[in-house]
Amino acid sequence: MTEKELIESGNMKMEWARNHMPVLAIVREKFEEEKPLKGLKVGMALHVEAKTAVLVETLAAGGAKVSIAGCNPLSTQDDVAMALDTRENIHCFAKYGIGSKEYYEAIDRVLDLKPDITIDDGADLIFKLHKERTDLLPNILGGCEETTTGIHRLHAMEKEGALKMPVIAVNDAKTKYLFDNRYGTGQSAWDGINRTTNLLVAGKNVVVAGYGWCGRGVAMRAEGLGASVIVTEIDPIRALEARMDGYRVMKMEEAAKLGDLFVTTTGNRDILTAEHFQVMQDGAILANSGHFNVEIDMDALASLSKSVKTVRNNIKEYDIGNRRINVIAEGRLVNLAAGDGHPAEVMDMSFANQALCVRHIAENKLLNGVHKVPEELDMFVAKMKLKSMGISIDELTSTQECYMSGWECGT
Amino acid sequence: MTEKELIESGNMKMEWARNHMPVLAIVREKFEEEKPLKGLKVGMALHVEAKTAVLVETLAAGGAKVSIAGCNPLSTQDDVAMALDTRENIHCFAKYGIGSKEYYEAIDRVLDLKPDITIDDGADLIFKLHKERTDLLPNILGGCEETTTGIHRLHAMEKEGALKMPVIAVNDAKTKYLFDNRYGTGQSAWDGINRTTNLLVAGKNVVVAGYGWCGRGVAMRAEGLGASVIVTEIDPIRALEARMDGYRVMKMEEAAKLGDLFVTTTGNRDILTAEHFQVMQDGAILANSGHFNVEIDMDALASLSKSVKTVRNNIKEYDIGNRRINVIAEGRLVNLAAGDGHPAEVMDMSFANQALCVRHIAENKLLNGVHKVPEELDMFVAKMKLKSMGISIDELTSTQECYMSGWECGT
Amino acid sequence: MTEKELIESGNMKMEWARNHMPVLAIVREKFEEEKPLKGLKVGMALHVEAKTAVLVETLAAGGAKVSIAGCNPLSTQDDVAMALDTRENIHCFAKYGIGSKEYYEAIDRVLDLKPDITIDDGADLIFKLHKERTDLLPNILGGCEETTTGIHRLHAMEKEGALKMPVIAVNDAKTKYLFDNRYGTGQSAWDGINRTTNLLVAGKNVVVAGYGWCGRGVAMRAEGLGASVIVTEIDPIRALEARMDGYRVMKMEEAAKLGDLFVTTTGNRDILTAEHFQVMQDGAILANSGHFNVEIDMDALASLSKSVKTVRNNIKEYDIGNRRINVIAEGRLVNLAAGDGHPAEVMDMSFANQALCVRHIAENKLLNGVHKVPEELDMFVAKMKLKSMGISIDELTSTQECYMSGWECGT
Amino acid sequence: MTEKELIESGNMKMEWARNHMPVLAIVREKFEEEKPLKGLKVGMALHVEAKTAVLVETLAAGGAKVSIAGCNPLSTQDDVAMALDTRENIHCFAKYGIGSKEYYEAIDRVLDLKPDITIDDGADLIFKLHKERTDLLPNILGGCEETTTGIHRLHAMEKEGALKMPVIAVNDAKTKYLFDNRYGTGQSAWDGINRTTNLLVAGKNVVVAGYGWCGRGVAMRAEGLGASVIVTEIDPIRALEARMDGYRVMKMEEAAKLGDLFVTTTGNRDILTAEHFQVMQDGAILANSGHFNVEIDMDALASLSKSVKTVRNNIKEYDIGNRRINVIAEGRLVNLAAGDGHPAEVMDMSFANQALCVRHIAENKLLNGVHKVPEELDMFVAKMKLKSMGISIDELTSTQECYMSGWECGT
Repeated sequence: MTEKELIESGNMKMEWARNHMPVLAIVREKFEEEKPLKGLKVGMALHVEAKTAVLVETLAAGGAKVSIAGCNPLSTQDDVAMALDTRENIHCFAKYGIGSKEYYEAIDRVLDLKPDITIDDGADLIFKLHKERTDLLPNILGGCEETTTGIHRLHAMEKEGALKMPVIAVNDAKTKYLFDNRYGTGQSAWDGINRTTNLLVAGKNVVVAGYGWCGRGVAMRAEGLGASVIVTEIDPIRALEARMDGYRVMKMEEAAKLGDLFVTTTGNRDILTAEHFQVMQDGAILANSGHFNVEIDMDALASLSKSVKTVRNNIKEYDIGNRRINVIAEGRLVNLAAGDGHPAEVMDMSFANQALCVRHIAENKLLNGVHKVPEELDMFVAKMKLKSMGISIDELTSTQECYMSGWECGT
Repeated sequence: MTEKELIESGNMKMEWARNHMPVLAIVREKFEEEKPLKGLKVGMALHVEAKTAVLVETLAAGGAKVSIAGCNPLSTQDDVAMALDTRENIHCFAKYGIGSKEYYEAIDRVLDLKPDITIDDGADLIFKLHKERTDLLPNILGGCEETTTGIHRLHAMEKEGALKMPVIAVNDAKTKYLFDNRYGTGQSAWDGINRTTNLLVAGKNVVVAGYGWCGRGVAMRAEGLGASVIVTEIDPIRALEARMDGYRVMKMEEAAKLGDLFVTTTGNRDILTAEHFQVMQDGAILANSGHFNVEIDMDALASLSKSVKTVRNNIKEYDIGNRRINVIAEGRLVNLAAGDGHPAEVMDMSFANQALCVRHIAENKLLNGVHKVPEELDMFVAKMKLKSMGISIDELTSTQECYMSGWECGT
Repeated sequence: MTEKELIESGNMKMEWARNHMPVLAIVREKFEEEKPLKGLKVGMALHVEAKTAVLVETLAAGGAKVSIAGCNPLSTQDDVAMALDTRENIHCFAKYGIGSKEYYEAIDRVLDLKPDITIDDGADLIFKLHKERTDLLPNILGGCEETTTGIHRLHAMEKEGALKMPVIAVNDAKTKYLFDNRYGTGQSAWDGINRTTNLLVAGKNVVVAGYGWCGRGVAMRAEGLGASVIVTEIDPIRALEARMDGYRVMKMEEAAKLGDLFVTTTGNRDILTAEHFQVMQDGAILANSGHFNVEIDMDALASLSKSVKTVRNNIKEYDIGNRRINVIAEGRLVNLAAGDGHPAEVMDMSFANQALCVRHIAENKLLNGVHKVPEELDMFVAKMKLKSMGISIDELTSTQECYMSGWECGT
Repeated sequence: MTEKELIESGNMKMEWARNHMPVLAIVREKFEEEKPLKGLKVGMALHVEAKTAVLVETLAAGGAKVSIAGCNPLSTQDDVAMALDTRENIHCFAKYGIGSKEYYEAIDRVLDLKPDITIDDGADLIFKLHKERTDLLPNILGGCEETTTGIHRLHAMEKEGALKMPVIAVNDAKTKYLFDNRYGTGQSAWDGINRTTNLLVAGKNVVVAGYGWCGRGVAMRAEGLGASVIVTEIDPIRALEARMDGYRVMKMEEAAKLGDLFVTTTGNRDILTAEHFQVMQDGAILANSGHFNVEIDMDALASLSKSVKTVRNNIKEYDIGNRRINVIAEGRLVNLAAGDGHPAEVMDMSFANQALCVRHIAENKLLNGVHKVPEELDMFVAKMKLKSMGISIDELTSTQECYMSGWECGT
């Protein structure tokens, strides 16, 4: 495609996404009217694809200058990146398939614009800020973080006293993690896996590592596709829940022998390692749905292998002698690196939260540390989403409210 | 049955329950050895059936004198009550089918024993303590509360400054509400409904009022039985979850017209009222799975009715002129009033928490107010449960722990 | 209860069932008007409980004299049997808990009335006719058979040239086996198991033997209750289906080690035998949902056992030394021997087929052998059922009919 | 891509498919050894993508010369077609995106080779044979038909006396339709829809037209993805099944108003027509999963529309004034026209049947007319599939066989 065609393609994707993000549309309309971000600069590091682009243009509609880099080398869609870069007040530095050096250079370029507010997905931008660009910190009003992994890093920073700015844990809004992490990841991970493998899920032993919100989504959709699901966990309560949800629960060293297809969703490292590769079935397929590519130990797998070859677009087969292990998208998050990421309607909720939180930062002086999404924003997103879906729900009568706040009525 | 046969029957039920409550068995063994409740008196108001009886004997095994009343007029199983009453250091004042006056008299008799520690399911005993028996309050070390509704009442008391003792919110232990309220209620509500009606769930419109943990359980099992599920809610986030779980979500005034079978699980009053009865389909069936019998407005239903008759054991048909409404178990909690309550394995977890919390109260000086279950007790229950089910799970390696507490590793 | 109370109880159960069997009601109305069975005698051996009673009164309403015995020693409900026996033109010889001798005596008494038409559930009556009462055969217009097991026996008889009367395979009507065997057995087997055990299904390994229509129903509801389901089969195609439906599939010798709860649905004998009992887990629970009590080898289990005791109403524990095996309802069909049988709405379809087939036999001269239910009767039941449920469906336009019968339209 | 790269890409896809088609591999090995098709010419019209290519090379391995055209203008993958065409004894005339004229020209070129045996998917080749190339008919040993729609056409031909050759209804093998049509279509239709739309299925009203094996698969996976499913049917029994499976069932004129996303699977025409488009919600999405593009009335939609534009790759938006209707892949079968078709493991079973049936035709003199797949071939496929999945199942003991064939054992 020519550059012009790419830009057209990016614009078309953005329009489709925009049309399926009604809550963000409500926010955008308000932003256009009220310009709450006027004069502010927003620096972002997110997966640059169509839904993100709609968030970016929403922020710009609110009066901000926005610069954005990717947050993963394989999740950028170049047509969208180029289309975005043509917009007024928006700079996009993301590119598909770049190496680590270029990846961090792009983040540097975002920081070069001296953002007032940051948005991260995985906290790489904030990390860079605190490690190398500390001169910019005094200027920063606050940041937003999109994902569980980023929240983990921020809490670790806070605990160590290293966090020098306020950050809103957007991931922890109920209208974010209950939906994006569960229904979003659940569908998009399988979309990525299915389109890439063209293999049958029904009748397979699918091993899901981790039974957090992402893991639940992945497990529930695996079941919905006819798999026999095995869950691995480190948390006894989650392990019990997985079992009572009908799944088998065991250690990975056992699951490794049984699985036909593995999906990691833990946010931790070393979930699938050499000891597991060596007991897997010939032809086992591995995918990661966690933020970073550390869940599957790709280095160990490469070391074990006599040869590596591409066996289907985006699948590499590692021949470790007595068995072949197939890895999708180099162990990078499969829903974006092998697909188009979460469905638009889910990102509608997540990114409406983002936009509202950016405004909240702009309008309030927050203290350094990790902050919750204000409950009224969360509720606003939920109510607008219901409305956009044409759903009406009950309201408490005053008698009921009274009953709920009383304690004298008993048996 | 003769008294002797009743006692035998009660003992048999208790043994069956005991054999399926392995975590509580571990606690009981420890209690027998260490007698942590020696010299203490425990006053209880719980559903008196086999699983509860095993909790009672566990407390007695720990050295306590225990007296127990029911917490609902229709949930007592007389054979179990009688068997329990024969045990040393145990008095049982519960009886099936008693009226409100006798109900509270039984609670009074429990209080007559001047308990050091209380256990409630719905907070009727604590209520009585604070309204009429305040003289006993100074003596009380603390209480435990089993159910969501009781917790609501306690928080309301606390907010008003009316709560004059420490109470542990046992319901809010993860190993309690995630399991008992969801998988327990889910199964036992349908057990009660199915055995009572002998009607098909598949192909019915089942309306579940409330999408809290109980409602989720009831909805999920309704779906598992082939129903087309409709959920009503007042909380926008829960409403969205219900919708994304595949259910229809609407106001009760709409759902009332569509439902073949209704199950209330809200903990609130006036969920099904005159306005709903009048638009329901002829033959609609109503069941309540909430703690109190206020969710279905039974008075309004009686007022509307030209006649009432029993149409099957434990089902009354209200003829309101142009349609007939069937109510199971007088609108009292269907899993106990029309069944044997939650499965033993689930109560194993809930009651292990209870026993451990009673010990915690005995061994610690708690301040007045509502307390959380200490996390280590919750974890203990989870780990013992997994073990009893023969399930092993992974543990974090030190590298993984380090990774989780660090923040420097990024893309 | 007094006799009068029992009869009242039986009548009440019948009225409840009648009110939930709308298709049979349509048939009954027609029968009342047209008296198609006038002058005929119908001899039956069926599970004598409320739904069956409604079929019996329907036949009587059509002008027939009806006599009925049970078809299983543990499935008769005495109150219904007594209520039925009070009706004009109806004799009921069924009684709960009788031995084999009395069982066949009751069938003899049914035959003493010299039936023109028979209805069987398991073919015991037809068997008796062909073995001992062959004098009655010339008189017989035909018979109806309700269940898969009976059909098997009849096909075996036909193959050997032993079948001396026409029989309609009512079981094989689509509106029978697709619904009764699947949704009926699926729900009622678990109703029986759950009310009898009060144990949790979620998180258990449930082994379902057989993946015919009953087995599918039982497996699907087990999954719906949160079990991890294992299926055993002898048919490779069904085994593949079970696997692709998400279940584990293996030999019973392997499944026996893993199962917490077993349900047999094969229609064959020796499904669970000594070799299996000896490798089961301590506390394993066995239930049979097949027609005869030959699926679990009860004799072998008794031989292995050092002691047997009742551990809960309708559950016997067999102590075979190193482990205890629990059997529900003596291995007799659990939905009836431990519950009230299939839901009324499902029997509505099965028994409407029965009534229509009895009429079909009365009005047509059928040749000896096993006959299909005429398709128009099957369709009539389906259409009336849909109507009673308030469901309208599409009809083919003439263009569509034409398209379906043509072959010239291609790509 | 250059021609060389395309061929490499096609070869890689074929190798991946081949590695996941173990039953076909067993057949191929035998074919290589025994050359059962030596000297025969096979003419095919199938979806030309990787799995089909493996069937083609299997036939060639058996000694046949094979020529193949597409069976749908949008289902050909050009890289595979080119790779296939390089093989010895194989000619491929398929090309993506061709018009109707070129489509039938390709079929003509296949027929020019004077095939002894044909394989069809939709019966276009056989149609052409009977309409225009009747001179070739005397030469033909027989044909195989892959899909329900083709079977319909053949039965219509047979009924009219127009069918002048033997054809095996491969679709009707149990190891074909129970798996390919259900699990295959179920997964691949949603793979196509999800990758094309990037929209959320959870929380949507998904309308599935038709509850045959394909419709069941599509409905079951829609439910598994969190949709609220509505089924339309013309058959009362299937409609009842759909309802008891938990879905809403109604006429399309009602469903049209409620649906967010529609999938047609009927094999008939005019399922979605002008009357439906006009009451649909703004933004409704339509996909067809039936063989021909006649289920959605594309002409009527075009006529109603003021404008048509591409809104995402492979999605066209029809603006009909007051609402916009989105159609995926021009209403052509979505799993192939918007995806890679069925998963390889499912096609393994279907195409093993095809290869075995081609051999059966070669080795037996069949009479003109539609023939069933010989049961032993069906069983062979099932057994080999189970084996390839590592699943062992029970076998009947002689006692059990005896019991099943007897009739004397009763209650």
